[in-house]
Amino acid sequence: MSSTAGQVIKCRAAVAWEAGKPLVIEEVEVAPPQANEVRIKILFNALCHSDLYYWEAKGFTPLFPRILGHEAGGMVESVGEGVTELKPGDHVLPCFTGECGDCRHCKSEESNLCETLRFNTDRGVMLNDGKTRFTKNGQPIYHFLGTSTFSEYTVVHVGCLAKINPAAPLDKVCVLSCGVSTGMGATLNVAKPEKGQSVAVFGLGAVGLAACEGARMAGAGRIIGVDLNPGRFSVAKIFGVTEFVNPKDHDKPVQEVIAEMTDGGVDRAVECTGSFHAMIQAFECVHDGWGVAVLVGVPSNDDAFKTHPLNFLNERTLKGTAFGNYKPRTDLPTQVEKYMNKELELDKFITHSVAFSEINKAFDYMQKGQSIRCIIRMDA
Amino acid sequence: MSSTAGQVIKCRAAVAWEAGKPLVIEEVEVAPPQANEVRIKILFNALCHSDLYYWEAKGFTPLFPRILGHEAGGMVESVGEGVTELKPGDHVLPCFTGECGDCRHCKSEESNLCETLRFNTDRGVMLNDGKTRFTKNGQPIYHFLGTSTFSEYTVVHVGCLAKINPAAPLDKVCVLSCGVSTGMGATLNVAKPEKGQSVAVFGLGAVGLAACEGARMAGAGRIIGVDLNPGRFSVAKIFGVTEFVNPKDHDKPVQEVIAEMTDGGVDRAVECTGSFHAMIQAFECVHDGWGVAVLVGVPSNDDAFKTHPLNFLNERTLKGTAFGNYKPRTDLPTQVEKYMNKELELDKFITHSVAFSEINKAFDYMQKGQSIRCIIRMDA
Ligand SMILES: NC(=O)c1ccc[n+]([C@@H]2O[C@H](COP(=O)([O-])OP(=O)(O)OC[C@H]3O[C@@H](n4cnc5c(N)ncnc54)[C@H](O)[C@@H]3O)[C@@H](O)[C@H]2O)c1
Ligand SMILES: NC(=O)c1ccc[n+]([C@@H]2O[C@H](COP(=O)([O-])OP(=O)(O)OC[C@H]3O[C@@H](n4cnc5c(N)ncnc54)[C@H](O)[C@@H]3O)[C@@H](O)[C@H]2O)c1
Ligand SMILES: [Zn+2]
Ligand SMILES: [Zn+2]
Ligand SMILES: [Zn+2]
Ligand SMILES: [Zn+2]
Repeated sequence: MSSTAGQVIKCRAAVAWEAGKPLVIEEVEVAPPQANEVRIKILFNALCHSDLYYWEAKGFTPLFPRILGHEAGGMVESVGEGVTELKPGDHVLPCFTGECGDCRHCKSEESNLCETLRFNTDRGVMLNDGKTRFTKNGQPIYHFLGTSTFSEYTVVHVGCLAKINPAAPLDKVCVLSCGVSTGMGATLNVAKPEKGQSVAVFGLGAVGLAACEGARMAGAGRIIGVDLNPGRFSVAKIFGVTEFVNPKDHDKPVQEVIAEMTDGGVDRAVECTGSFHAMIQAFECVHDGWGVAVLVGVPSNDDAFKTHPLNFLNERTLKGTAFGNYKPRTDLPTQVEKYMNKELELDKFITHSVAFSEINKAFDYMQKGQSIRCIIRMDA
Repeated sequence: MSSTAGQVIKCRAAVAWEAGKPLVIEEVEVAPPQANEVRIKILFNALCHSDLYYWEAKGFTPLFPRILGHEAGGMVESVGEGVTELKPGDHVLPCFTGECGDCRHCKSEESNLCETLRFNTDRGVMLNDGKTRFTKNGQPIYHFLGTSTFSEYTVVHVGCLAKINPAAPLDKVCVLSCGVSTGMGATLNVAKPEKGQSVAVFGLGAVGLAACEGARMAGAGRIIGVDLNPGRFSVAKIFGVTEFVNPKDHDKPVQEVIAEMTDGGVDRAVECTGSFHAMIQAFECVHDGWGVAVLVGVPSNDDAFKTHPLNFLNERTLKGTAFGNYKPRTDLPTQVEKYMNKELELDKFITHSVAFSEINKAFDYMQKGQSIRCIIRMDA
């Protein structure tokens, strides 16, 4: 039993007080975990674009003050009533979408959208009592995605925590807790390219590059990376990308450019941008007859996917995925083992690192398209 | 060798001179078949809604004068140069989408969209020479879907003809040449419901009822029929439909009605209406996590499929199919055998029958929603 168990912990958290305004490092109070909850000490974060959307809150439901963060790694500090799977000291990866293990989705081989613990970007409170575990001088501060990892301590539902090998370096494997698993799974679990097939990936951030890496692992013959940021092209090669397309370099729609490059379209496309234009392009650039496109990017509230129905009649398939269809508690420990066995490369996704006190720099790097993943060290 | 081989044949055809105007039975000239073409004597037709669309030409490319018709059965009269697969007297089902046997699509297990012979509703001429085989006093009359079966004789590419068991009654198995195969294949080959799953079918015409029949054959647990025409509901029961929903009976969107009936959505949905509203509804009514929707209805030129991308992110799949993904030459003979072995029921799809001279009645029955399939007897 840690000495802080059952007590309110005071610690540093990066609070988003207002949409788009720099986060402020504040001392906050973190309440003890309730039934089926776990309080964890966060050691490392990585910044994912989803944090940025809900911080900017342009086209996304605003909810402030809020503690963002969901791609992270930590250690259990104390557990609430009924938690038997985890104990203080265990190493964990929090996940923005959970796994109760019992519902129709958790029992289905196809779905990872747990009935109770699935992602909900608009909820800012814990399921147990509909309240927050964070306060600042008594004022509640909202949670984000059930994780709120931009805090030295946070409270998470036990179903949203994967227990992992304590020997795994958390400053590396934290990227598995969202971006890398999402992109890799989108290709390997959902798009499922066959050996030798062509794959187009829209958006070459960490999620998209992980999708490329998945295509490389699946033995894809051609991997076409599509991004508006020409800076992404050189780095993409080490993720298996064989050709690059910048839509800005062409007068015609990028789906036509890709169709011409590939004799009618790619076999698989994975969209990892969050732009609904790219979602439509990714779908329309797959080959008729057998092409499969997978949407991964998070759309804003007023986006729409729009295409002519004939594009479906011509036997194209469109799917989407959350967290690459991985079940977090079942699959994350295995993913971590793969990293430990050098079957999975993670280090190349990490381009930057900042101290927690400089967290706003991580936002800057992402907005400028400079970083792939920027690690945020919570001890500094 | 028939005595007419190599000669122009004069015969009756129902000519659509103008959009939406009653067809006129005319004496037309039918030229002999060219290389890789076959001239066939049509014995029976059935009317499919696609004929109606291109006759009305509202939102579809108009092309007149034209001989419509594509769901039919006939007998080979003569064959053109290079045709070895068929000989005079063979019984055949023409198909609006062909199978060359050689291209990437024909060789793929997933696609039936033959590179050269796939359906093309806007082409009114033969591939060989870009000309028509029909004339009326020298004036060319356009083809439709490469079949133009509303004529006592027609010329069809050999790749669009399936040779079938001559013992099969053509006045029954003709419905396999489009509608019934399309609907049944959409469920069995594309939606692929598992035993016990729920299936919603939008549109209870012949195509939709064949989709229901496919669901019944697959062992679906619930088959929910959706149609605006309440008259369709009683007949639908013999095609396995267990529940009916008329969108007009509800104040809320039908996808919500279905989600409530099925604890979150059906496992599979098949759209067989041609209405883009129904296409969107069919997609949005499938269960998140694993639901698959299949589009079958033919959209008009200016229709759009539109939905929030989150409906994909929530792990729904959307597909479409032409001819239920059957390869006509490979699969139709087997379908016919299944009918002969009583593994497949076709008679119940046929509710009306008219003489060729009364073909406009068949259009009437369909427009009024009275018929499922109306057979057109070419000898009368
Ligand atoms: N479905 C899920 O479970 C899930 C999980 C994590 C992240 N996401 C989403 O995945 C997306 C990517 O996340 P990330 O962290 O890699 O972001 P990122 O900002 O690092 O990368 C996005 C890349 O997309 C490019 N891009 C933007 N618009 C484009 C367009 N129209 N065409 C081509 N490229 C374009 C950008 O230049 C950038 O390189 C975001 O929308 C994020 O919210 C989804
Ligand atoms: N993809 C293909 O290969 C293929 C092949 C054949 C037919 N089709 C298409 O399939 C569709 C059905 O053909 P059919 O011959 O069975 O037609 P049909 O007219 O016999 O049946 C269509 C049914 O849909 C119903 N309907 C129309 N709008 C609806 C709506 N918004 N909601 C619910 N029900 C609605 C009608 O009341 C009717 O009962 C047509 O669009 C046809 O062109 C496609
Ligand atoms: Zn994320
Ligand atoms: Zn669950
Ligand atoms: Zn048809
Ligand atoms: Zn072919």
